[in-house]
Amino acid sequence: MMIDTKRDVNSTHENWVMSKRYRMGILGATGVVGQKFIELLDGHPWFETAELIASDRSVGKLYPEAVTWMGTAPIPKAVSETTVKRAADPLQCDFVFSGLDSSVATELESQFASQGLPVISNAKNFRSDPTVPLLIPEVNPDHLCLIQKQSWPNGGFIVTNPNCSTVGVVCSAKPLDDAFGVDALQITTMQALSGAGYPGVSSLDIQGNVLPFIRGEEEKLEMEPLKLLGSVVDSEVQRSEISISAQCNRVPVVDGHLISISVQFREKASLEDVEGVFRNFNSPSDVIDLPSSPDQFLHLFDDPECPQPARHSLLGGGMTVSVGRLKACGVLDYRFVSLVHNTIRGAAGGAILNAELLVSKGYIGNRDS
Amino acid sequence: MMIDTKRDVNSTHENWVMSKRYRMGILGATGVVGQKFIELLDGHPWFETAELIASDRSVGKLYPEAVTWMGTAPIPKAVSETTVKRAADPLQCDFVFSGLDSSVATELESQFASQGLPVISNAKNFRSDPTVPLLIPEVNPDHLCLIQKQSWPNGGFIVTNPNCSTVGVVCSAKPLDDAFGVDALQITTMQALSGAGYPGVSSLDIQGNVLPFIRGEEEKLEMEPLKLLGSVVDSEVQRSEISISAQCNRVPVVDGHLISISVQFREKASLEDVEGVFRNFNSPSDVIDLPSSPDQFLHLFDDPECPQPARHSLLGGGMTVSVGRLKACGVLDYRFVSLVHNTIRGAAGGAILNAELLVSKGYIGNRDS
Amino acid sequence: MMIDTKRDVNSTHENWVMSKRYRMGILGATGVVGQKFIELLDGHPWFETAELIASDRSVGKLYPEAVTWMGTAPIPKAVSETTVKRAADPLQCDFVFSGLDSSVATELESQFASQGLPVISNAKNFRSDPTVPLLIPEVNPDHLCLIQKQSWPNGGFIVTNPNCSTVGVVCSAKPLDDAFGVDALQITTMQALSGAGYPGVSSLDIQGNVLPFIRGEEEKLEMEPLKLLGSVVDSEVQRSEISISAQCNRVPVVDGHLISISVQFREKASLEDVEGVFRNFNSPSDVIDLPSSPDQFLHLFDDPECPQPARHSLLGGGMTVSVGRLKACGVLDYRFVSLVHNTIRGAAGGAILNAELLVSKGYIGNRDS
Amino acid sequence: MMIDTKRDVNSTHENWVMSKRYRMGILGATGVVGQKFIELLDGHPWFETAELIASDRSVGKLYPEAVTWMGTAPIPKAVSETTVKRAADPLQCDFVFSGLDSSVATELESQFASQGLPVISNAKNFRSDPTVPLLIPEVNPDHLCLIQKQSWPNGGFIVTNPNCSTVGVVCSAKPLDDAFGVDALQITTMQALSGAGYPGVSSLDIQGNVLPFIRGEEEKLEMEPLKLLGSVVDSEVQRSEISISAQCNRVPVVDGHLISISVQFREKASLEDVEGVFRNFNSPSDVIDLPSSPDQFLHLFDDPECPQPARHSLLGGGMTVSVGRLKACGVLDYRFVSLVHNTIRGAAGGAILNAELLVSKGYIGNRDS
Repeated sequence: MMIDTKRDVNSTHENWVMSKRYRMGILGATGVVGQKFIELLDGHPWFETAELIASDRSVGKLYPEAVTWMGTAPIPKAVSETTVKRAADPLQCDFVFSGLDSSVATELESQFASQGLPVISNAKNFRSDPTVPLLIPEVNPDHLCLIQKQSWPNGGFIVTNPNCSTVGVVCSAKPLDDAFGVDALQITTMQALSGAGYPGVSSLDIQGNVLPFIRGEEEKLEMEPLKLLGSVVDSEVQRSEISISAQCNRVPVVDGHLISISVQFREKASLEDVEGVFRNFNSPSDVIDLPSSPDQFLHLFDDPECPQPARHSLLGGGMTVSVGRLKACGVLDYRFVSLVHNTIRGAAGGAILNAELLVSKGYIGNRDS
Repeated sequence: MMIDTKRDVNSTHENWVMSKRYRMGILGATGVVGQKFIELLDGHPWFETAELIASDRSVGKLYPEAVTWMGTAPIPKAVSETTVKRAADPLQCDFVFSGLDSSVATELESQFASQGLPVISNAKNFRSDPTVPLLIPEVNPDHLCLIQKQSWPNGGFIVTNPNCSTVGVVCSAKPLDDAFGVDALQITTMQALSGAGYPGVSSLDIQGNVLPFIRGEEEKLEMEPLKLLGSVVDSEVQRSEISISAQCNRVPVVDGHLISISVQFREKASLEDVEGVFRNFNSPSDVIDLPSSPDQFLHLFDDPECPQPARHSLLGGGMTVSVGRLKACGVLDYRFVSLVHNTIRGAAGGAILNAELLVSKGYIGNRDS
Repeated sequence: MMIDTKRDVNSTHENWVMSKRYRMGILGATGVVGQKFIELLDGHPWFETAELIASDRSVGKLYPEAVTWMGTAPIPKAVSETTVKRAADPLQCDFVFSGLDSSVATELESQFASQGLPVISNAKNFRSDPTVPLLIPEVNPDHLCLIQKQSWPNGGFIVTNPNCSTVGVVCSAKPLDDAFGVDALQITTMQALSGAGYPGVSSLDIQGNVLPFIRGEEEKLEMEPLKLLGSVVDSEVQRSEISISAQCNRVPVVDGHLISISVQFREKASLEDVEGVFRNFNSPSDVIDLPSSPDQFLHLFDDPECPQPARHSLLGGGMTVSVGRLKACGVLDYRFVSLVHNTIRGAAGGAILNAELLVSKGYIGNRDS
Repeated sequence: MMIDTKRDVNSTHENWVMSKRYRMGILGATGVVGQKFIELLDGHPWFETAELIASDRSVGKLYPEAVTWMGTAPIPKAVSETTVKRAADPLQCDFVFSGLDSSVATELESQFASQGLPVISNAKNFRSDPTVPLLIPEVNPDHLCLIQKQSWPNGGFIVTNPNCSTVGVVCSAKPLDDAFGVDALQITTMQALSGAGYPGVSSLDIQGNVLPFIRGEEEKLEMEPLKLLGSVVDSEVQRSEISISAQCNRVPVVDGHLISISVQFREKASLEDVEGVFRNFNSPSDVIDLPSSPDQFLHLFDDPECPQPARHSLLGGGMTVSVGRLKACGVLDYRFVSLVHNTIRGAAGGAILNAELLVSKGYIGNRDS
C-alpha cells in the first residue's frame, strides 16, 4: 500500500525540481515502522533508500532474509538486494530516518546527529527535549526554528514526530484550537496492533479481546499535544495549557487508531461552526505541495457509520486524518471520533513528510560522498 | 457457562425454603438473550422452564430444531424436549421472561400482562414508562413500588432491566453517587457482538475493525441512568440530574462490554476515598441471598492490565461488574474502566435476579394451573 | 485496491488499440461481487460502467445511497453519480457482468441474453449447462467454442466463471494435469468471509471460530474442475475423470481462500519436475496481453511461511494464484497449498478477464445505441 | 473452565477410595500448559498442587506475580499463595507434571526421573524413546509395560502424552483402526493459538489470517500415531504401518484444533458401519472411572454445522473428542472432521488422565516426606 499521492508526484508537484536525489538511511529497518518507511519510500521522487541499519541479529544479511515482511506488496527490488548494516558501519547517506526502539534510540540517534547527520525520528526519546521540534508539518511548522538551538557538530540535528495517537488527537484538535481555543480534551483511544511493533501483542492476549492498558501511552497523549499546540516565543515553545485526560485501549485491529474525543472550547461555537472548521481547514501552502502531503489533511464524514479503521485508514494514502460522529456533548461542548493510520500518518509517513518539509526549507542538503 | 453461584444454592442460600417451584415462560426463546435465559436457568433452584415462545418460523418445532444454539455447553435436556409455542397459545406458567425484539415487545408484553402474568422484560419498550420499574436489584430495589401504579388486570405487571451498557455504567456509578454525588459522566463504550443479537453484526463489517456507531445506543445510555439513579418521591421516580455524554463503539469481542468512564462529583473525594467506595459497596441484605446474586457486586482490580472482556466478564458467574484503571482525570475528577457481561448481568442474568427479587418480595406467586 | 496491471495498460499492452470503448452494465451492483466489479473497472482501458442494476430496495437511488461500500478506497466518482436501475429498465450497454445471487440469476441472466446481450456471469446457475463455457482464460480458452451452441436471439450469450474455490484448485492443477496427468485431488479449503457475500456470515458464528461446513460448496468443488479440465471434442466438453474429494471450511479471514491440496499423478514425477512445472507455466500468448492478465499466472513460494491470505492474496493485483509448501505426500504423490483472492481472481477479476478475452476474440462488440 | 466430571467425582467415582492424596509438582508452571494444569487440578480428588517450578525469571515470586494468567476464572487460592521454585530446589512431591518447553525438557525431566520421581510429561522430547510410553489411556493403556524397561534409579520414570494434533487424529482413528484396519490417513489441521504457547504467535501474524506452516508439527503428526496405534510385542511397541500425510495450519482461534481427515481402510465398510463404530466406541473399563475421564470419549455430530472449535471444544469438560461431517470420500474411503481441545485433552487434561491411570495401576505411590 503506497501513499497514493506519490504516484502522481511528477504531474501534481511539478514545481519541485530537485537538482539531485537524497540518499537516506533507515535505522531499525526490520521493525514495523522500518518496513513502513521502505514501503512508502518506494518510488519516492526525492529520496532513495541507501542504507538499512538494524540490530546485530540482522547485520550482514540481505534485507529479505533479515525481515519478517508484513506488507501485502513484495519488498521493493532495490531494497531486497541491500545488505543490512550495523549502526557503527560507515554510511553513505544524506540523512537518516529512525524507527528505532526507545531502548536504543537515545544512544544511536545521538551518535548519528554527532556525525553531522539530520535524524528524522519516530522514537519518543527526544520528543520532550526543548531544542527538538516535535513536528506535524500542517500543525506547527514554525517549531522548526528550535533546530538552531541544537548543538550537534557538522550540522547534525534531530527532528521528531509525535506518538501515533497524539497525531490523531492533534490533527483534529488543531483547527478547533485555532478557531475557538481548546480548553479541555477528554480522550479514549482504541488502538491498532501495529502500534505495538513486532512481535508486539501476543495473539492470546488480544484475540476477541480489548486491553485497557498500553504502558506509557496515556502519559504521552496527555503531554505531547501541549508541545505541538504550543506557540513559539523567543525561539522557545510555550506549552499549551489545555487540560487533557486520556484512556488508552488496544483493540484487535491491524492498522488505524480510532479515538473518541470530547472537547471544551474557550469561545462559544455552534455545531455548524465546528463542522465548517473541520471542512475548511487547509494545509499551509508550503506543505500542500510536498510529495507526501495528502490532498485533504482532514476529512469530515457525515455518514454516522464512519470512520472505521479497516475501511478508512488509508484515505489520502494513509496521510489524511478522518473525523466523524460530530455531535454536541452532554458534558463538555462537542464530541467526535478521529481516525489516524498509525504507521503512516502516525509514524513513517509523518516522518517522511517532516523530511520533505526539511528539504524544502533547506535544512537537509546533499552531502559529499 | 452457568452462573456459578447457582450450583451451591442449597448450601449458601439455605434460608430460602421455597414451598414450590415457579414455572416460567421465555418469550423470544431462540434469540441470543433467550438462549442465555435457558443456559442460566438450567438447574435454577426456584424456576423451571415451562414454556418456550418464539416467532412463527420456530413454532411447532422441538427447541433444538428451531435454534442456532451458541452455548458451549449442550442444550439442557428438559429444554431440548420442549416444543416451541406461539404467543397466542395457552401457556402454563407463573410468569414470563421476555427477550423479545423491540419491534414486537410492546404488543406481546402487553398481551401477557393483560393475561395477568408478571412480565420480566429485557426489551427496551417499557423502560421509560413512568409506572414500570427499570430495575437493578442492588441499585434501586425501592423502585418496585411503581408496580402498584400499573393497571393490568388480574395482577399482571411489567418490570424491565436496563440496556446492557447502562448496567455497566450504573453499577459502577451507583456507589459513587451514594458517596459523593455524581455530577457528570463522560462515557465511551467498546461493546461486544452478542449485544447486537443474532445474526446481528456481519462478520465483513467487524472483522479486524471497530464500528463507531450503534443505532439508538447513545440515547439509551444518556437517558436510562437518570431513571435508575432517581429517587422515589410520592410513588414516582424523580429522575437524577447527572450530565451524561456517551460515545458507543462496537468491537470484535464476543461477550463483555468494556466502558471508559470519567466522572465528576459534587463533593470532593480523594483517590483513596473512591477506591474505598468501590471496595466496600455491599449489595442490600435482601438481595445478597438471592440465588443469582454474586458474592461481590463490584470488583475493583488493582492490576493495570485488568479488566479485560475475554478474561474477566465471567467473574461472579457473569453477575459481578468489574472496575479498574482508576486514576485522577485531567478534565473531570476521576476516570476508570468498567466491564459488564452484557448477556448475563446486562440482560438475562439481570432479568433473572429481578425475578428472584420479585419472588422474594411476594410480587410473583404460584398460579393455579 | 486495484488490479495493478491496469495502471500500466497503455505501456505494457500497447498492441491493443481499441477503436472505441465498451459500455457495460453490472447486475447485482450493490453486492460484494458487484462492488468488486466497480473497484476493478475503475480506470479500465476498454470498459466503462454504464448501468448499475440492483434489487428493488436500491432502485432509483444514487449508488452511494444504495450500497454498504466495503472498499478501502472511495467509490469511483463516475459510479457515485449513477442511479441504480431495475433489470426491466431499458439499458444502454454492450454487455453485462452478473454478480447476481443464484436465487434470481437464472431468470435475469436469461432475460438479458434474450435481449441479445453477452452476459459474463459469476453466478453458478449456468455453469453446468453443456452449451455454456465455464471459463478461466489461461486454463480452457478453447471452451469458448461452446457459445455457438447457444440459441439466444440477436447474438446474446452467457459465459460463466467458476466458483472461487474451484479457481484456486484448477489454476494450480492445470499445469500439473498438462504435464503429468492428474488422477486424484484431495482438497481441504479454508475460505474467506467475503465468499459468503454481505451480510453473509454472522460475526457471532465466526469470531475466533472455524465453520466446517459451507452449503453446496463441496459439491461445486468436486464437479466444476471436471468441466474446466475437460477437453473439447466435436464442440462438446468431455469431462475430465479426476477423482476429487473436497472438505470446505470457513475461517475468519476477509479475503483469500487458502487450500490444502494433495495430488496423485498418472505419470511419475520428481519434486523438481513439479517445481519446474509450477515455475514455468505461462499464460497463453493471447491472454497474457489482456489488460487484467497478471504478469505471473502462478507464483511458487519457496518460503515455508507462504502463502498467507492476509499477505499474499493481492499478488498480481489479486489475479495471481500462489502455491507453496510443496512436498511429497505420504498418501498420494505431492501436496501443497494454493491461495486465490476469492473476489478478484475467484470472481469479479476472473469475469473481467473473461470479458477481455471475449472482446479480443470478437465475441463482444459495440452495439448501436 | 474445569473438567466438569471432577465436580461429581465423589458421587460418580465412589469406588475409588484413596487412602491419601498425592502431592504433585508442576514443571513450567507459568506457561500455557502449566496454567491449564493448575486450572484443571483445582479441586482434584486425588492430586494437590504442592510445588510450582518455573524459570529463573519467576523463581522466588508468588505465583500470581510470576504469571500472565489467562484463565477466565481467578487463580485457585492455594496456588495463589505458593512461591515459585527452581528445578534445583528440594521438592516435596510424589510426582511431577511437565509442561516444559522442549528446549529444556530433556535435561530437567531426566533430572527429576533420576531423583526417583515419576514424570508425566507433555513435552515432545521423550515421545519417541522406545522405553517411554506415549500414552492415551483409552487408546493404548497396554503401552504402560514399557516403563519397566526404563532404568532411572529409585523408581523414577517418564510417561508422555502426544502432541495436541496427534490426539485429535488418533482418538478418532483408533476405533476405526480396531474395526476396519486403517491403511492411510490424509490430514489437514486448523490449529488454535494456544497450541503455540505464550506469547507464541504474534497478533500481527494471525489477525484475519491463516498461517500454512507450524514448525515441526507435520513431522510429529506423521510419526506419533504410528507409535500410539502400534501393538506391544515382547514388551516392545511394533509401530503401525499406516501411511500418513499431514498439512498443518494455524488459524485465529483460541482453543480447539479442527482437523480434516480422509481415511482408507484395509477392510470394506459402509457409511453405517463407520457411524456405528464412532457411536459405540467405549473407553476401557479401567479408564472410564478415572476422575478426569469424560462420559463420552468420542462424540459423533450429525448436524453438518458441527463440530466448531469455539462451541464444542469444551464438550466433556474438554476431554471428549468430537467428530462430524462424516461422508464417503471421492479419493480414499471416508472423510470427516475431528475436534480436540488442544490444551485440555491434547495437553494438560491428557497428562492428568495419564497420571490417574498410573495411580490406579499402582505406578505412582506416596513417597515419604
